[in-house]
Amino acid sequence: MSQLLARIGSPSDVRALPEEDLPRLCQELREDIISICGSVGGHLGASLGAVELIVALHRVFHSPGDALLFDVGHQAYAHKLLTGRRERMHTLRHAGGIAPFLDPRESPHDALLAGHSCTAVSAALGVLEGRRMMGHRGHVVAVLGDGGLTGGLTFEGLNNAGGGHLPLVVVLNDNQMSISANVGAIPSLLRTREARGFFEGLGFTYLGPVDGHDLGALIHALREARASSRPVVVHALTLKGKGFPPAEADAQTRGHAMGPYEWRDGKLVRSRGGQRTFSEAFAAVLEDAMASDPRVVTVTPAMLEGSALNALKARFPDRVHDVGIAEQHAVTFSAGLAAAGARPVCCIYSTFLQRAYDQIIHDVCLPGLPVVFAVDRAGLVGADGATHQGTYDVASLRAMPDLHLWSPVVGEDLAPMLDTALAAPHPSVIRFPRGTLPALPPDAQAGGAPLQGARWLLRAESPRLTLVTLGPLGIAALDAARGEPGWSVLDARRASPLDEAALLEAGRAGPVVVAEEGTTRGGLGSAVLELFAAHGVMTRVRLVGMPDAFVPHGDARVQRAELGLDAEGLRRAGRALLEGSAR
Amino acid sequence: MSQLLARIGSPSDVRALPEEDLPRLCQELREDIISICGSVGGHLGASLGAVELIVALHRVFHSPGDALLFDVGHQAYAHKLLTGRRERMHTLRHAGGIAPFLDPRESPHDALLAGHSCTAVSAALGVLEGRRMMGHRGHVVAVLGDGGLTGGLTFEGLNNAGGGHLPLVVVLNDNQMSISANVGAIPSLLRTREARGFFEGLGFTYLGPVDGHDLGALIHALREARASSRPVVVHALTLKGKGFPPAEADAQTRGHAMGPYEWRDGKLVRSRGGQRTFSEAFAAVLEDAMASDPRVVTVTPAMLEGSALNALKARFPDRVHDVGIAEQHAVTFSAGLAAAGARPVCCIYSTFLQRAYDQIIHDVCLPGLPVVFAVDRAGLVGADGATHQGTYDVASLRAMPDLHLWSPVVGEDLAPMLDTALAAPHPSVIRFPRGTLPALPPDAQAGGAPLQGARWLLRAESPRLTLVTLGPLGIAALDAARGEPGWSVLDARRASPLDEAALLEAGRAGPVVVAEEGTTRGGLGSAVLELFAAHGVMTRVRLVGMPDAFVPHGDARVQRAELGLDAEGLRRAGRALLEGSAR
Repeated sequence: MSQLLARIGSPSDVRALPEEDLPRLCQELREDIISICGSVGGHLGASLGAVELIVALHRVFHSPGDALLFDVGHQAYAHKLLTGRRERMHTLRHAGGIAPFLDPRESPHDALLAGHSCTAVSAALGVLEGRRMMGHRGHVVAVLGDGGLTGGLTFEGLNNAGGGHLPLVVVLNDNQMSISANVGAIPSLLRTREARGFFEGLGFTYLGPVDGHDLGALIHALREARASSRPVVVHALTLKGKGFPPAEADAQTRGHAMGPYEWRDGKLVRSRGGQRTFSEAFAAVLEDAMASDPRVVTVTPAMLEGSALNALKARFPDRVHDVGIAEQHAVTFSAGLAAAGARPVCCIYSTFLQRAYDQIIHDVCLPGLPVVFAVDRAGLVGADGATHQGTYDVASLRAMPDLHLWSPVVGEDLAPMLDTALAAPHPSVIRFPRGTLPALPPDAQAGGAPLQGARWLLRAESPRLTLVTLGPLGIAALDAARGEPGWSVLDARRASPLDEAALLEAGRAGPVVVAEEGTTRGGLGSAVLELFAAHGVMTRVRLVGMPDAFVPHGDARVQRAELGLDAEGLRRAGRALLEGSAR
Repeated sequence: MSQLLARIGSPSDVRALPEEDLPRLCQELREDIISICGSVGGHLGASLGAVELIVALHRVFHSPGDALLFDVGHQAYAHKLLTGRRERMHTLRHAGGIAPFLDPRESPHDALLAGHSCTAVSAALGVLEGRRMMGHRGHVVAVLGDGGLTGGLTFEGLNNAGGGHLPLVVVLNDNQMSISANVGAIPSLLRTREARGFFEGLGFTYLGPVDGHDLGALIHALREARASSRPVVVHALTLKGKGFPPAEADAQTRGHAMGPYEWRDGKLVRSRGGQRTFSEAFAAVLEDAMASDPRVVTVTPAMLEGSALNALKARFPDRVHDVGIAEQHAVTFSAGLAAAGARPVCCIYSTFLQRAYDQIIHDVCLPGLPVVFAVDRAGLVGADGATHQGTYDVASLRAMPDLHLWSPVVGEDLAPMLDTALAAPHPSVIRFPRGTLPALPPDAQAGGAPLQGARWLLRAESPRLTLVTLGPLGIAALDAARGEPGWSVLDARRASPLDEAALLEAGRAGPVVVAEEGTTRGGLGSAVLELFAAHGVMTRVRLVGMPDAFVPHGDARVQRAELGLDAEGLRRAGRALLEGSAR
């Protein structure tokens, strides 16, 4: 019975509550968060830890006149519940439902879009300076987790804000974790008296540390911050997962993100798919490589959990480096490792690789160092939505000279790809999607064959059309081609460099559909067009991929169907091409 | 008469010199640097300031067994002179000559490629960890300027190194400037006693501050650092431009990078081209925009000088923000400004924009904020070489939905493009090259016309072939088409979104050459191929651009000719296409 919450339609209702009701409000928020995450999954731990902090923020600051920017946004479910979205919270992370992170298009109380970490301080400083220019008043608050403090962007923002005079309020929600435990000097520093010196050195007034679950102390500190005429940081100590015993007890991640669960008789009942994911399969292959070659070393930016590397870390503690939320450093550190003769495998999500685009170009590709990038979550990511889609890796990276860009159809492809990449004298990417491993139908050529360019999954005797695919789409293409006379399926295997002979053979035989889970603007299909143009191959080509718009959160399977990235869609595309219709 | 330097073939010769000869060696190094920069231009100021520091480093550390990594590398001319490259230093920055920055392919004493700032700490930590893994000994030293300390990547590296136990040696060459004066909290902090607390907070032993021109003090501190078993920072205070009066006297940049000059009778005689550059023309147009619209605000990451923004800063001190070397922050800060209703123009070099790829995607394009990016040095950059080529902006950015990507042919195009971009409800890019403004021949359509998609610079009555270009290449194309019957020239003006009608008209009329100063893998030409494929236009297309390899330093005009990016090359490409030859 959420009696108080039911009456909260906006933050002004929070401010109108008698102070003695606030602990009860926090309790109801926790119950809601636990119940919502139980039914739809989500970022439980951070949001539970930030309940009192968010209530205090809405007591002291007047959103949206005062702008609140939550870094990442996975701590902000209580903020969503207090800003008119409670009725729809059961749609969290579902198609058309409440967004996984924060989005101004969803609520005026979300000052800026968030999803990737470390943006809040820079964005908030921009909002504050912009408002000042435009003659608007109001305070601007950046709320960040301590995990985001190891990221360079946060530091750039702090340096700039602290060197200026605008009264930016930074609230540090310090739960001692990013997704798993934090690493580096700063997280240790934060729990000592040196924290004050650090922030004062950066030009901020330091308030704290404050018990982040003591409403009175929080409100007192935030009022002081609100009254400040210069940059100020409020340092709140919180417990990730607070109030939910299974999360509090999980020292590894404290319930960072969980799939749906039931909470019955004091026990957690989780339904786990049980099917193996691409991440897990890659981690197993990487473990074999590390066991057989002592030069192999693994680097991850805070994704031991997400990239399924915990077992690897346990087995090779000295050769698995979690560098924290620091993607640029992860890549340049890997470059240094490779320069010294080690064989680094940098495990990173496609969407976070964007953070290190220059480091890949300048520190890895330009000197031609043999770093292997294991790019996870490439393609559609489902519930995490627009900020996390793995859309741009192929288009942005295939322009690099001598970077080999692989993608497996099935788990069996991973071992030969990693072996090939580790033996190569140049950088490589192995991109694979989020989700469980598909199986290659028995009538297709077996995986695990030696890697010699592209691979015909199906080769028609009287060729009429070829479906060219990258990654697991090869299986959908096989389904599409079945029963269509003269259709072939060519698994490109590499988006760069192309297997020119195989693709030219396909193009000379007839029309070609190129399908990929990534943007079609500059992706694999575009590479095929460049090849055909260079060789004067005149054939009709149709590109299928992620469209000229950002794909929101939703069920990836449904979205694939909508985008034509399933068997039915590929069949449609092939037939349309054969009928000679333009789009 | 450089009597000592003439005998130094490698760092071991530096160590063999009697100590009393060292000041003389420094004097000779300065004379060489001043003379070399006088004849070929170069990064004078930083290299003059680091002379004693580099001599001391080579006395204490044994390169290449000990690895020295200089951030950026523009401070390292003395290092080049002491490591066997003196005889060739007069070829600095010229085609086939000594590289502008550092490159292991040039010398084993350059531990890693450098050119962009802020990479040294991360890379050095990787080299140190990699050597440890491989059982190699030797110290690893990262030498960085204080300008690089505001960049997030440096901070990510320091956090990771300081949180670990490896004896990384960081030498901070603190001359209080990046290119121009530094900004933010950290640079101020460095000249106070808080510097020690800052670095100790990051987990480093702090040695200093040391007078960076006192050889004895430097050698003493570096020996102590070399003996350390844990991370250590040596903080050296230097004077940029030291020993060259005109540089010392120039408080703005202290002779950061200079073209050739003569140093006669205590006076500096510089030959300045006098011709106006694209940067200057854009700054003038931006000044008009700022004068007429108080919402317009300029952001630059440490490029007030390079982007010709000093006059703008003097006129609008509160609306021109130099945020230091912090490209990610520059972009996300601009996003915040736009969200608050201001109209930010973020001035940034193409090569440095790579540092903020994720911020452009996540913080600007995803929320659709109207930030204008003025992308300077797009295309060939000449003497700065491979690390600084503006190759990848079009290919990586045209995948963004609703980002308009403009490029001017002549200076007169800049005003309408900026006006259009500032009035748009979505983000825009205006990309222009390094160098002086070209003039449109009188027979071409005048610039400054209203922007309605592409523009025919030459339209044949009996069309046989179209040259499609982006940016000033339109002028070369006009030259190429002159005298060729039936050749048209279409200035695309936008790489994204394309003017589909004009391009389809060109493609339906005959073969098309697409020329751009950028990679052809995913660039404008590739976009044209995608358009033709989507509409079933079957015509021969040839892409001309920057190749599948990194372009080294050299004369941009010569390189254009070699790449076919001049009138002669475009004529060749068009004729070959008409003759129907494949490549």
